[in-house]
Amino acid sequence: MTLYTDLISDLAQKNDKKIVMLVMDGVGGIHAEESPETALEAAVTPNLDALAAKSALGRTIPTDWGITPGSGPGHLALFGYDPRIPEHRIGRGVLEALGIDYELRPGEVAARGNFATIDADGNISDRRAGRPSNEECARISALLDEKIAGREGIEITVRPVREHRFCVFFHGDGLQPDLEDTDPQKTGVPPLKASARIEGGAAKTVRVVQTFIDQAREVLRDEPQVNGLNLRGFSSHPGLPTFQELYDLNPAAVAAYPLYRGVGSLVGMKVLETGTTPAEEFATVAKAWDDHDFFFTHIKKTDSSGEDGNLEAKVAAIEAVDAALPDLLGLKPDVLAIVGDHATPYVMSGHSWHPVPLLVKGPNCDIDGATRYTETEALKGSVGTMSADRLLGYLLANAGKLGKYGA
Amino acid sequence: MTLYTDLISDLAQKNDKKIVMLVMDGVGGIHAEESPETALEAAVTPNLDALAAKSALGRTIPTDWGITPGSGPGHLALFGYDPRIPEHRIGRGVLEALGIDYELRPGEVAARGNFATIDADGNISDRRAGRPSNEECARISALLDEKIAGREGIEITVRPVREHRFCVFFHGDGLQPDLEDTDPQKTGVPPLKASARIEGGAAKTVRVVQTFIDQAREVLRDEPQVNGLNLRGFSSHPGLPTFQELYDLNPAAVAAYPLYRGVGSLVGMKVLETGTTPAEEFATVAKAWDDHDFFFTHIKKTDSSGEDGNLEAKVAAIEAVDAALPDLLGLKPDVLAIVGDHATPYVMSGHSWHPVPLLVKGPNCDIDGATRYTETEALKGSVGTMSADRLLGYLLANAGKLGKYGA
Repeated sequence: MTLYTDLISDLAQKNDKKIVMLVMDGVGGIHAEESPETALEAAVTPNLDALAAKSALGRTIPTDWGITPGSGPGHLALFGYDPRIPEHRIGRGVLEALGIDYELRPGEVAARGNFATIDADGNISDRRAGRPSNEECARISALLDEKIAGREGIEITVRPVREHRFCVFFHGDGLQPDLEDTDPQKTGVPPLKASARIEGGAAKTVRVVQTFIDQAREVLRDEPQVNGLNLRGFSSHPGLPTFQELYDLNPAAVAAYPLYRGVGSLVGMKVLETGTTPAEEFATVAKAWDDHDFFFTHIKKTDSSGEDGNLEAKVAAIEAVDAALPDLLGLKPDVLAIVGDHATPYVMSGHSWHPVPLLVKGPNCDIDGATRYTETEALKGSVGTMSADRLLGYLLANAGKLGKYGA
Repeated sequence: MTLYTDLISDLAQKNDKKIVMLVMDGVGGIHAEESPETALEAAVTPNLDALAAKSALGRTIPTDWGITPGSGPGHLALFGYDPRIPEHRIGRGVLEALGIDYELRPGEVAARGNFATIDADGNISDRRAGRPSNEECARISALLDEKIAGREGIEITVRPVREHRFCVFFHGDGLQPDLEDTDPQKTGVPPLKASARIEGGAAKTVRVVQTFIDQAREVLRDEPQVNGLNLRGFSSHPGLPTFQELYDLNPAAVAAYPLYRGVGSLVGMKVLETGTTPAEEFATVAKAWDDHDFFFTHIKKTDSSGEDGNLEAKVAAIEAVDAALPDLLGLKPDVLAIVGDHATPYVMSGHSWHPVPLLVKGPNCDIDGATRYTETEALKGSVGTMSADRLLGYLLANAGKLGKYGA
């Protein structure tokens, strides 16, 4: 925890106000010589425009200056967890588990796996095992899940992801995630043996993992292509303090994609079943309106269209949010924030480090007189440019959920 | 190291992009009632104006709010070293050594010296020994350098600076720089004895330094004015991790003045021989263009004119940079930053704590539509106001030299 989170947590007080954090993933872009308009500027957004006129605008720095976050750190920051500090880092194995909706238990060790082809000499000949079909991935994963006995009382679960990718979970007493990857990152050599990051550490886990690898080789010995594997990103549930513990909130997550549901569940959110369009997601919020005081609502398409470098698709994704927005506003949230977990400028076809436009509407948000929710208007906004991990506290304040600090 | 530097260092990745950091020392000023225009605003800068129109602008806080840095911390921050943390502080002895182009060895202890006049009772009668000429300073320094034997195998080097100022270096095993100044800061009392900052510490160094002082008194006993000395700012090479280690960069420093070459060399920069005008410095960059991927280019006159309180001279210094700028732009740096290590408002005739205007030009810098590179335009810029120690990471990001953080 940081000094800021401690402070916010100390000051948090319950009331009946409701906060909605609408995350338009990857919202925000940049101006370039050949692309003078961002997607937010190009989109026709009458509802967002009208909302902006009654709101305060500002910008968030997703992690720190110049740092381009993935979805994990991007969202953790929005939830108030400083993504720079080591204990807030979510391992790749855990992220993969979240992405397949696997409910990780405390102490369980997760790893990403890649199926590989191993030749007669024991060397890797294909690090992706010829990219098997998803069906083949599921068949092999089920085979391993069923046949592998493990050792020392550790329960082993194997789940398919897609193509050559799978997850493996080790559950039982005395395991630690501090293992090196077994993937040598090249062909013509054997997979690395399981080993601890610090010599002599995680001894039991090293034994359990190596036995799993050996047993998997045995189970797959007659498979023509998928006869070996590499493991990466050993990690376990970060055990973050929850929204309930930190902020006395009762939060819900409305997200169509597993990874985002997973990051929400890591911080104590109740994950709601939902459809994938903004209208369907807002309907999910409406249905659960009486049961929660914080709603994290996640829109994926603003990011995926940006990653595709597709201005039209990003504009359409924004306009779809705009069209459905009256449903959300109709619920009369006490505080509504619209923000992204990072920018995904379509001119870059990827996540970026640029500040993200932020809109905050609340009873005492200040009203800037902005005409639109865009990067250019956000730069002029009264909220200013804040580190994203300050947003949650800022929304609590706007909802009257933070007491005065000191007398 | 800070969490931020660790993060940047972890994410740094090599590519063939080239970054130029053009430091106009002391650039940036303030508006005052009788001086409504800053030097940047008063200067005629067609090339900078055209560049600003295609760039992103912002501001740096040199060290922290309200803190006026010297050249050492000002530049360390620009190089990504948080100047607030103790292990990043460069001692005055070391700075003086850098300023006379002395190449400090690891473990060597440097001190600044002031020649003094000591009366028959052993009390200081003049803390500056009547301000001797530079020639006299050189003569006395050479005398000490030649005559003093030292003790315990420690090699002693004495070098003139100017007037009453000189440097002394202690080189050998087992020395520590944690000594108090011997300067009592007043006359009518004897110089202080050498002593450790912590009682009982640095015992060998205390002995060696006191013996040097005693031997110097002996060597100078017949000099009429320069017959004693005080030592200050004991310090050694900070041993900072280099640009190579931290960022996988191969940096060069182009600076006409020793202090700036020295600060560059402290962080691993190759120091290039150069002339003193902007045109000569840019020609040096051009000559070494193929050999490096990071160029620190330092302009001194923007600062010295500001310290003189001379608006015309500061305007001329800025216009000289503007006139030579096409040579630098002709090299087509992938990322170009223009910034100062601090502001030197001519109305203050000295360094100040004010934010410094920043210009960043790169493939994905964002384009703000600014018309000029001035304090007023910089305040409106999309980069926002960042701590100066974030700039290096920000430039790495713009050059595609930082990987994504987390998945």
